[in-house]
Amino acid sequence: MPERTDADLTLYYAPRTRAFTALWLLEELGVPYRLESFDLASGRHKHPEYLAQNAMGKVPAVVDGHIAVSEIGAIAIYLADRFGDAGLAPVIHEPDRAAYLRWILFNAGVIEPAYAERFNKWEPRPANHAWGSFDQMLAVVSDGVKIGPWLLGARFTAADVVVGSTLRFGLAFGILDKHGPIGEYVGRATARDGFIRANAIAEREAERFSPRPR
Amino acid sequence: MPERTDADLTLYYAPRTRAFTALWLLEELGVPYRLESFDLASGRHKHPEYLAQNAMGKVPAVVDGHIAVSEIGAIAIYLADRFGDAGLAPVIHEPDRAAYLRWILFNAGVIEPAYAERFNKWEPRPANHAWGSFDQMLAVVSDGVKIGPWLLGARFTAADVVVGSTLRFGLAFGILDKHGPIGEYVGRATARDGFIRANAIAEREAERFSPRPR
Repeated sequence: MPERTDADLTLYYAPRTRAFTALWLLEELGVPYRLESFDLASGRHKHPEYLAQNAMGKVPAVVDGHIAVSEIGAIAIYLADRFGDAGLAPVIHEPDRAAYLRWILFNAGVIEPAYAERFNKWEPRPANHAWGSFDQMLAVVSDGVKIGPWLLGARFTAADVVVGSTLRFGLAFGILDKHGPIGEYVGRATARDGFIRANAIAEREAERFSPRPR
Repeated sequence: MPERTDADLTLYYAPRTRAFTALWLLEELGVPYRLESFDLASGRHKHPEYLAQNAMGKVPAVVDGHIAVSEIGAIAIYLADRFGDAGLAPVIHEPDRAAYLRWILFNAGVIEPAYAERFNKWEPRPANHAWGSFDQMLAVVSDGVKIGPWLLGARFTAADVVVGSTLRFGLAFGILDKHGPIGEYVGRATARDGFIRANAIAEREAERFSPRPR
């Protein structure tokens, strides 16, 4: 099938949420998109029109023409393949594809629930839980980012956006250590032009909906 | 890159674990593979040689030549694209690709942790947790399997193996209702030849390591 170049992308976004990951990804891809930004306080993500895009009523969601995609890992794999010229995904049959996919699934299935385990002080049950435990996750991630500069080595991919963004939240929430390989990896990722652009948009949108007192 | 046809696949498998999902997938793909089956009681999944394939020390892991892939969703996306002739994945630029990826990420990021919430009687915190809540997951899944026969409609994909397998575990563990759309969907999935072949292998392997008393 020929590559569709008629990009008609919309990002459904809310400030101070996990939707930032998709915003960063779009800035790294460098494709045009429309930002549909709203405050979660508006409840818009629970309205029927929004639920038609993402039945979970969560941000982000991305709509590509008439095609809705949700779950950040799916958004990342979908967009990085769809806009392959940006070079953010190893192509199918490229050996790095396996590690690339593994890290994106690892974010959804391991890092995110491991954070919940730690936040909620749930008893770790590594043999039962698909995510192992927070400590197991931490060991694997620390090891994964140590060589660097990126998860796949020399090449920055959408997996770095997904994992890097979640690790950045973990540092901000104080459940990961700023001093060490994770802090250094996030430092490299947040020094990128794509991150800096996304962060400026995120700050503008946060200010728009809940301005800081002056 | 030309399609590699020199399949040299190994599935690291343990009876009565989530590794069944990968076994079912391989049987649906119809590609040759070697089954490395071991009892978790042996501790082999915590040995250094195994940890080199999957640092999480979990089954399944799949090794494709020299390429290791872990996390069941990553295994599914990787193998279904790698052996595209089996038709278990919409190709990139096919509109259904978005929903296909979303369901596979939904399994890792929503269904699995929602099960843990229910098993452990954790307090649902839908606004905080990436997986929403068990009840939210249940509503979305019930709706997703209702039209059928498969998640993408007429077409059976690797997403049905991944999600179908997890739903089957949920029925077996009594946290999902056998009577209703999920029970019917799992009934359709487990009537497939690929499932039946995988299930026969799974029963053989379970019997081999821990025979039932006679």
